[in-house]
Amino acid sequence: MQISDKQKYDKVIELSRRRGFLWRSFEIYGGTSGFWDYGPLGAALKRKIEEEWRKIYVIGEGFFEIETPTIGIKEVFVASGHVNNFVDVTVECTKCGAEYRADHLIRDATKPLVFEHGEDGTFSHVLETNVEGLDVKELDKIIREDDIKCPSCGGELGECYQSNLMFKTSIGAGEKKVGYLRPETAQGIFVDFPHLLRFYREKLPFGIVQIGKAYRNEISPRQGVIRLREFTLAEAEIFIDYMDDTHPTFERVEGEKVVLYPREDQNDEKEPKEMGIEEALNKKMIENEFLAYNIALAHKFLTKIGIPKEKIRFRQHKEEEMAHYASDCWDAEIETEQFGWIEVIGIADRGDYDLKAHSTASGQDLTLFKSFENPIKTKKKVIKPKMGKIGPVFKEKTPLVLKKLKEGKNEIKDGKISLEIDGEEITIGEEMYSLEEVEEEVYGERIIPHVIEPSYGVDRILYALLEHSYREESLNLETDLNLNDEKEDEKRIVLGFNAFLAPIDVAVLPLLTKEELIKKSRDVVEILKRENLLADYDDSGSIGRRYRRQDEVGTPFCVTIDFETLEDDTVTIRERDTMKQIRVEKKDLPNVLGRLREGEEFLKGP
Amino acid sequence: MQISDKQKYDKVIELSRRRGFLWRSFEIYGGTSGFWDYGPLGAALKRKIEEEWRKIYVIGEGFFEIETPTIGIKEVFVASGHVNNFVDVTVECTKCGAEYRADHLIRDATKPLVFEHGEDGTFSHVLETNVEGLDVKELDKIIREDDIKCPSCGGELGECYQSNLMFKTSIGAGEKKVGYLRPETAQGIFVDFPHLLRFYREKLPFGIVQIGKAYRNEISPRQGVIRLREFTLAEAEIFIDYMDDTHPTFERVEGEKVVLYPREDQNDEKEPKEMGIEEALNKKMIENEFLAYNIALAHKFLTKIGIPKEKIRFRQHKEEEMAHYASDCWDAEIETEQFGWIEVIGIADRGDYDLKAHSTASGQDLTLFKSFENPIKTKKKVIKPKMGKIGPVFKEKTPLVLKKLKEGKNEIKDGKISLEIDGEEITIGEEMYSLEEVEEEVYGERIIPHVIEPSYGVDRILYALLEHSYREESLNLETDLNLNDEKEDEKRIVLGFNAFLAPIDVAVLPLLTKEELIKKSRDVVEILKRENLLADYDDSGSIGRRYRRQDEVGTPFCVTIDFETLEDDTVTIRERDTMKQIRVEKKDLPNVLGRLREGEEFLKGP
Repeated sequence: MQISDKQKYDKVIELSRRRGFLWRSFEIYGGTSGFWDYGPLGAALKRKIEEEWRKIYVIGEGFFEIETPTIGIKEVFVASGHVNNFVDVTVECTKCGAEYRADHLIRDATKPLVFEHGEDGTFSHVLETNVEGLDVKELDKIIREDDIKCPSCGGELGECYQSNLMFKTSIGAGEKKVGYLRPETAQGIFVDFPHLLRFYREKLPFGIVQIGKAYRNEISPRQGVIRLREFTLAEAEIFIDYMDDTHPTFERVEGEKVVLYPREDQNDEKEPKEMGIEEALNKKMIENEFLAYNIALAHKFLTKIGIPKEKIRFRQHKEEEMAHYASDCWDAEIETEQFGWIEVIGIADRGDYDLKAHSTASGQDLTLFKSFENPIKTKKKVIKPKMGKIGPVFKEKTPLVLKKLKEGKNEIKDGKISLEIDGEEITIGEEMYSLEEVEEEVYGERIIPHVIEPSYGVDRILYALLEHSYREESLNLETDLNLNDEKEDEKRIVLGFNAFLAPIDVAVLPLLTKEELIKKSRDVVEILKRENLLADYDDSGSIGRRYRRQDEVGTPFCVTIDFETLEDDTVTIRERDTMKQIRVEKKDLPNVLGRLREGEEFLKGP
Repeated sequence: MQISDKQKYDKVIELSRRRGFLWRSFEIYGGTSGFWDYGPLGAALKRKIEEEWRKIYVIGEGFFEIETPTIGIKEVFVASGHVNNFVDVTVECTKCGAEYRADHLIRDATKPLVFEHGEDGTFSHVLETNVEGLDVKELDKIIREDDIKCPSCGGELGECYQSNLMFKTSIGAGEKKVGYLRPETAQGIFVDFPHLLRFYREKLPFGIVQIGKAYRNEISPRQGVIRLREFTLAEAEIFIDYMDDTHPTFERVEGEKVVLYPREDQNDEKEPKEMGIEEALNKKMIENEFLAYNIALAHKFLTKIGIPKEKIRFRQHKEEEMAHYASDCWDAEIETEQFGWIEVIGIADRGDYDLKAHSTASGQDLTLFKSFENPIKTKKKVIKPKMGKIGPVFKEKTPLVLKKLKEGKNEIKDGKISLEIDGEEITIGEEMYSLEEVEEEVYGERIIPHVIEPSYGVDRILYALLEHSYREESLNLETDLNLNDEKEDEKRIVLGFNAFLAPIDVAVLPLLTKEELIKKSRDVVEILKRENLLADYDDSGSIGRRYRRQDEVGTPFCVTIDFETLEDDTVTIRERDTMKQIRVEKKDLPNVLGRLREGEEFLKGP
């Protein structure tokens, strides 16, 4: 059944609200934009997405996870550049006091959002007024020149100003110590670098991940569940030796095909194109193996959880789009009906930006010693003092002078060397020393690792998954023999999640509300719980109605207890997508469900 | 090997720091008290504790989990009482500006902390100066009378004042909307009550859980990992019908024995006593079945993760100790070497405090309709108008008058009824009506559920677990035949975690760093990863040294690849506690490890 574009978002949100996936936060107090609650089914789905992510990054890649506070002290975010650079240009209405993000206001005023979909259904990034990368003055100028007014009351707009997007707080009593809610989990990893380096025994490359809340104090978020003020990031920081970008397990992603949309093609208004990840590397479309590997891994993750391949593309940031810390960045984007292509993962090359910044700010050494395979021999000039000349001039100070010269930190200027001895400046003339060339063996050097960062927006991925899992099916009541018990409705709504992601693993339904069937059903629930499965018991309404209820929240399997169960201890398993049923012995249930959950085809049976 | 009390805390913290369990946050910037990072092993341990909790509460009890924001709007915390009541009395030094919690300052000044351990090792709750429940004025008075000075500089202390313990922030640009970081996850559940009630189809009892960050802006926390400003709570809010406190699955905890320390026994300075949970209920030592059930469940959880029974007790709050929302509260306390008995779980009866407060503040109906088993017949007097008297007086207004009288909201005063008709007040005299008694059927009533809340402090549980898992063993190198490869050290340090909690599930070690052994080991790592096991590969140092390294972080099993492996594809599994080894076929490894992890005795073998 075809669902029209405009309706789908509303339908998904309505279903999410009604069945407990997504609720507006603080709804009884009128809600506040940018905050959403995960209801019982939404939270279960989110946890399963996160678990799948851990399987890939923590277990698969071997990147350990850490957990650092959501509150950070000011020093961290001054060093990271967020205090100065994590800002949006804001403008306030002088009449009604409404606040707007200046760039969004201009974009909306000059080109209404509804036209952003191309006629062929694609989403266009080319805007009537290109506001990307404009500064306060430039944005202010456009507002004056185009005479843009407050969209809600028509009032005059005030002057544009920068506002920081971090939530600010203070630590301790009084207002003594400024803290911020972290805008990304990454900084908690960077400031732990000395510990992490020791944990990984000073060997590159290594990766560390963190899944947790991050915050962005949006000025006036108006995109529902897409633009949140509090959200969950799953981030990996991969520390690499920039001299050696060979990925140690590149073969794992070989053959992965991805749709790429490099910067140049966007500028030339070309279309994105699909290609193998090796080809993209060979053509230098992607700059290094670690970036390419992580793009392919992100693609594997998104397709594994069930996003259709044709709805995924990787778009490279344009120069003016990039965050202050990034030297290159590719976004994984998913096409949605309501919002067009939305960014769900950013895969950035942060270079040595962060470690350098924290090293400078904290005065700590954040380098590691990289041994050369073979020591390198270098030649070096050293100062050789002439004792016969120095002794007579400096007398009892001679030992101090020699010590200073030996430290090797002396600068020679016009043949003369200036030294400070006991607070007094003395000069060593050309006649007092000679320069000699010596050979030296260098065993390695201290380097600052570079960082490749895949950063996943869990909330957006969850929303995109809901949208792409939603379908409506018309049932042919006359001809379809599988619908034995399900003839009540003419259509059904299905969230077609993969079994390993479904919020409810399995539902247990007594055919009728008879005491003996209920008791048997409760037993089955206990058996399934022991397998650590989330088993939902439901005895309210007709069996057809109950199947629909489970279809609608994506429950892959319903176990039905009927009168045959009482006779021979068999139960039926009804599968969501095919609506077919098989009968299995109760004692085999955990085993059969286990195999079905791992993807065994349904009617192959037990 | 006996470890002296004082040393143990230092040893556990040193090990935690060195091996990546716990690090001070922002250490490169000097750190900030009340914030700790979980390093790679600490975070893995924490996640496993949380997973175990979910097994009991989400899967076992069937309480769905939700996820609500850590930032809450002001309205929520005004209604919940936290803006007014979640405060500590603070005092500042007028000379050096240091801030103190007044009650702690007085306690420390009048009785140094080191004496709080009794001579028999128990921790005493009786303080020289009892400061529990004193208000600002009373605390201020003690400081003046006892002439207490600033402990860090000896300066004069200023006047005591109340400071709120919530971190404050503002939402949106400017300072327009006040927000707070939540002091507990519970409020996010209470404000979702209308949605939750629908989710559970308006039937009590039901439970909802949340695991997440909570915050408490401590004035000057000085107890290391025990008193955090940002911490993780795992909370369940169980909504019950206060008229019916029969727990539906009480049989699950029958026979559970717990050590109880009721309020009265504390006041009478009696000792805590062990008893069966049913006995405690029968003796009315615990007030209701839901509280009792949750005390027993908390006991099951703590013992299952490995806290020794004799180190657990449940202490009832004294009247003056209770939080503003609680009508009764029992703390699960664990005895630690450094801090004595510390609260790790609070099990509170919150009554209808929260739902009532939010209903009043938001104007929303937060009741549910409770059907009576049988409709109740009640008698009621109704007004019966006398038409012959009313018609002539009110003429064309008669229908309106009759309508008003029928609404039944009329008050009879001195036999007369006042009505407002079209803004005009009219009077119905005694002659115009009669009172008749009718029988009415009432099918139910609207009630506000009460809430029982077990609230787990995950961080403290983790610390207590570290302390109680730590042991040092001396090895008898001469006689112990199991130490074949492990003879390097005379002692070993072990974190004796249960296998299902250990941060590293299994280590894979090539006996020597030979190419062919390394390759084989890498294969084994891949096999184990496919089982979703966190497998650590280590080839650096002697095999004995590597076993020690794994013992120290609690890894229960080491798989060693040796030259025999190359010949017959068998590997050894070495168990942490017994240090014994078995040899199994490589292909059986996942299966054998699975059974061992589930608790099968080690040398029963494959």
